[in-house]
Amino acid sequence: MDRLRQHIEQITPLTNEEFEYVKTFFSLKKVRKNQYLVHEGDEVKYEYLVLSGIYKVFYVDEQGKESIVQFAQENWWMSDYYAFFKQKNAGMFIECMEAGEVLCSTLEAREKLSADLHKMEHFFRVKLTNGYVALQQRVKLLLSSTPQQRYEAFSHLYPDLIQRIPKKFIAEYLGVSRETLSRLYSASK
Amino acid sequence: MDRLRQHIEQITPLTNEEFEYVKTFFSLKKVRKNQYLVHEGDEVKYEYLVLSGIYKVFYVDEQGKESIVQFAQENWWMSDYYAFFKQKNAGMFIECMEAGEVLCSTLEAREKLSADLHKMEHFFRVKLTNGYVALQQRVKLLLSSTPQQRYEAFSHLYPDLIQRIPKKFIAEYLGVSRETLSRLYSASK
Repeated sequence: MDRLRQHIEQITPLTNEEFEYVKTFFSLKKVRKNQYLVHEGDEVKYEYLVLSGIYKVFYVDEQGKESIVQFAQENWWMSDYYAFFKQKNAGMFIECMEAGEVLCSTLEAREKLSADLHKMEHFFRVKLTNGYVALQQRVKLLLSSTPQQRYEAFSHLYPDLIQRIPKKFIAEYLGVSRETLSRLYSASK
Repeated sequence: MDRLRQHIEQITPLTNEEFEYVKTFFSLKKVRKNQYLVHEGDEVKYEYLVLSGIYKVFYVDEQGKESIVQFAQENWWMSDYYAFFKQKNAGMFIECMEAGEVLCSTLEAREKLSADLHKMEHFFRVKLTNGYVALQQRVKLLLSSTPQQRYEAFSHLYPDLIQRIPKKFIAEYLGVSRETLSRLYSASK
């Protein structure tokens, strides 16, 4: 739980007493490679703070085509947030690509912590602000860039993920074909 | 300013005294058709809560192609949020499509109100949550849907905007060509 404290204190300091309270809302889970944390159609009980491993948040359209909405690694939060916040069944999947550990927390926990501790409401607001900005940039990128521009922007933002994630999945994240991505990889070497 | 109070109180009730304080952080601005509130390259001082009118948040790529990131109408918030939160110069434009009024507020105001009033931090967190969820849905839509699916999803979500916004701009928002959109319009009648 030290990792949780460090993570929160990057944004707001907590007293020992406050952190003792906060940590009761989180539970640790080990995740195996290829294990699903969220499966389409199921209830979405948790959001996850990644301690280790790599995960992909994706969905499958009517034609069976897979698209990746988000990757997640250390210190990233993930869930099917539409389903999580609106308390609907999942429209997406979360699968583990590299084994690791996550902290699980419920919507009730997020709301209770935010109501009880102004500091935690501040923490969640700052995290949401960063997430909102990243998504607005992602929409901008998807709307008009060429495959090359998307690839370059992704490599620039996440040089570590480029090394750790199979090309096939990067293609699904960027919304480009695998063949196009392979050409871009070769050209960038 | 009654509209501001109603807007905030949809999420959290305020005392008269609190609202008197909150409202000092907002200023009213009338906006003419085709007026720019944000211009690429300029400092982004404000975010805007729309009281009336319709606005588009868009950017222009190196080839001069315009893409619309967001429309905004009554009770929506808008800014170039990357630039606003990171205090960078604008990478986008905001232009008024139908004359109206907006309330302007600064990043300093958002932070000060959030720090001073737990209720206001809650208000901004809830608004960000809704915005985050909407953007995650938009990424999902852009990643894999056909032009027809995008058009149908947009008409379903925003039946009023379909009536008020020229087709050209809806095409730029959906990332489809104008010709494709015209075919979809004809087919849906």
